[in-house]
Amino acid sequence: MPYFDYNATSPMVRVAREAWVAAQDEAWQNASSPHRAGVRVGLRLQAAREKLAVLLDCEAERIVFTGGATEGAHAIMQHLSEQLPLDARIGVSVTEHPAVLAAVGSYFESERVVRLPGTFGGTVALERVDQALAAGVKVIVLMAANNEVGFLQPWAEVARKCRAAGAMLVCDATQWLGKLAAGGLAEADWVIGSAHKFGGPKSVGFLLRPAAENGFSVRRGGAQERGQRGGTEDFPGIAAMVAALAEAEQSKVLLEDDRVRTRQAFEAEITRRLEGVRVLAPVVERLWNTVALVMPYAENHRWVAKLDKHDVQVSTGSACASGKEAPSHVLAGMGVAPEEARRVIRISAGWDTVPGDWQKLADALVAVADELKPPSNVVSV
Amino acid sequence: MPYFDYNATSPMVRVAREAWVAAQDEAWQNASSPHRAGVRVGLRLQAAREKLAVLLDCEAERIVFTGGATEGAHAIMQHLSEQLPLDARIGVSVTEHPAVLAAVGSYFESERVVRLPGTFGGTVALERVDQALAAGVKVIVLMAANNEVGFLQPWAEVARKCRAAGAMLVCDATQWLGKLAAGGLAEADWVIGSAHKFGGPKSVGFLLRPAAENGFSVRRGGAQERGQRGGTEDFPGIAAMVAALAEAEQSKVLLEDDRVRTRQAFEAEITRRLEGVRVLAPVVERLWNTVALVMPYAENHRWVAKLDKHDVQVSTGSACASGKEAPSHVLAGMGVAPEEARRVIRISAGWDTVPGDWQKLADALVAVADELKPPSNVVSV
Repeated sequence: MPYFDYNATSPMVRVAREAWVAAQDEAWQNASSPHRAGVRVGLRLQAAREKLAVLLDCEAERIVFTGGATEGAHAIMQHLSEQLPLDARIGVSVTEHPAVLAAVGSYFESERVVRLPGTFGGTVALERVDQALAAGVKVIVLMAANNEVGFLQPWAEVARKCRAAGAMLVCDATQWLGKLAAGGLAEADWVIGSAHKFGGPKSVGFLLRPAAENGFSVRRGGAQERGQRGGTEDFPGIAAMVAALAEAEQSKVLLEDDRVRTRQAFEAEITRRLEGVRVLAPVVERLWNTVALVMPYAENHRWVAKLDKHDVQVSTGSACASGKEAPSHVLAGMGVAPEEARRVIRISAGWDTVPGDWQKLADALVAVADELKPPSNVVSV
Repeated sequence: MPYFDYNATSPMVRVAREAWVAAQDEAWQNASSPHRAGVRVGLRLQAAREKLAVLLDCEAERIVFTGGATEGAHAIMQHLSEQLPLDARIGVSVTEHPAVLAAVGSYFESERVVRLPGTFGGTVALERVDQALAAGVKVIVLMAANNEVGFLQPWAEVARKCRAAGAMLVCDATQWLGKLAAGGLAEADWVIGSAHKFGGPKSVGFLLRPAAENGFSVRRGGAQERGQRGGTEDFPGIAAMVAALAEAEQSKVLLEDDRVRTRQAFEAEITRRLEGVRVLAPVVERLWNTVALVMPYAENHRWVAKLDKHDVQVSTGSACASGKEAPSHVLAGMGVAPEEARRVIRISAGWDTVPGDWQKLADALVAVADELKPPSNVVSV
């Protein structure tokens, strides 16, 4: 059953599961306990932090382990809202993940938020970033890769612009990590990641903070994470997360070119075989795994249900937003009309997706198109 | 190697690990995804919620799954600080867990916090609760069972007092759950629990909120947990947590009387064999698993290290507070002098601890006592 919903979550990869199970056997003790078994867990936790720091090419001290990306976004926004001058403004790309927008909205009044619109390709309009920085915005919030459409944001360039302007960049790298090389992400002042999006367990994530940032904490409690996050450290989960990312960095992210070609072949085939279908953001660089298609007719939830019966799993969009009636803010930000947005399905492949799975998906889409075709379009053969 | 540090964390029990592994195989998808596999995870998540509600004897709607007790404490305190009138005060037992005290301190200025002192046995002084409620305190914060010394708080009685006074009770049941029957805890308006303290995984917990409480959320994000906690639900972790608590409720908590007798036999033996040792809170009801001992000489970290070499693992106190130089606030609240507090070790058994383990502990304590005895006390035989 081809699964094309990796952007919602991924199955745990073997190395991550093995790391988790081994840690539950050998290193389940509390890292803050004073006996040797506890101290050993603390040392292994530090070793995991250092391994992750190598993968991210940053100082280990910048890493704070979290419960996931949403927690990370809230912690960063709460901290910034407390640290920044009361009249400081924050520039936020309009196509950010709902969790990041909710975090911004939880801690910043709307008059302090400068909306950074995207181009029709979805990527942020760089001249608007320039304008915002010139106008004294102190923080830019820009994700690395979009969860709904897959377009890559020019985060490295924006990081440079921020540094030149004395501003900070908050980069949600949730969809980038594990799919593309992590090197360079640490150029952002704040980075957010979530393990279950790259083959690790749910409930585990990390963030990078600036090396010199004082007073940051996700929440106060005990002395865990050097006072930066109260609560017993989940070493098994952290070990699994780092194992998953290490494997991705060592082998998976190197295959990007092949995978982009496979995705492009699918896009070419489906637009050829299915009249009226449209690939969103066809020109800009996108994740190798993500395709958002505007279907020619019928609402997206009907496509998802019919494809499901053909044993192919896709999504209507962000799982976090599914169930909402309002059309996607990402699509709206790209200038997609609401009527079209209701016909968009999200296809997101994974590391184990093979060309044959893409072929099955294309065949299933063509078959479902026949089932959903409106009567007026029925053509007798 | 007898492990007597269960109050810091417990190894995962078999049923929990099996539930986790099975869910990673069968139900790893995103519960918010629109395909059938996602919907099935959502249904299983709801079934887990209802099973937990039966164990806790409360409405399933009161349950919000969290990342653990510290997260729960912060979410509740943040919510209460936003909901209560600006001049409303909150009564907090002085022997609460550091994470709860940190959460209170994060959201309530100290002049709004009424400290509720304990008796020398550690349990809260009920007349001070009465006074606080009579003075219009709107919230009482009282844990169910203490993590350092094990004394049980009169939470059921305080819940009744709160209800009569129109106040709310926040009850941190982290150390109670899995050790004693959970029935009745839902009488508290807010309850906090953490899976890894009762044989479940780390990074998973739950809280109970009042059925009629509007506007509560741990953090905003997607629609997960009916809008009450943004972030992908960790169904494997939740399934493991509920399996662990179900097993404890079905078999383990029923053995309390036997286990209290085993603990008491240890206490009798060690006070007989080791001159000058003292059991804290000897008279009040305590958890069957917890003994805090004032050792006759030498600082507690030396006892922990020496016992460790005798293959017995105990703690200096709360793992969350270890590494802190200041003496325990729990012991101070019980009237234990700082000089004595530095000699306190915490012994916390588990479900698999057998009388032979307690015997090994007693023997090890006696052996270590010989090693640590100050020269002036050496008596030639």
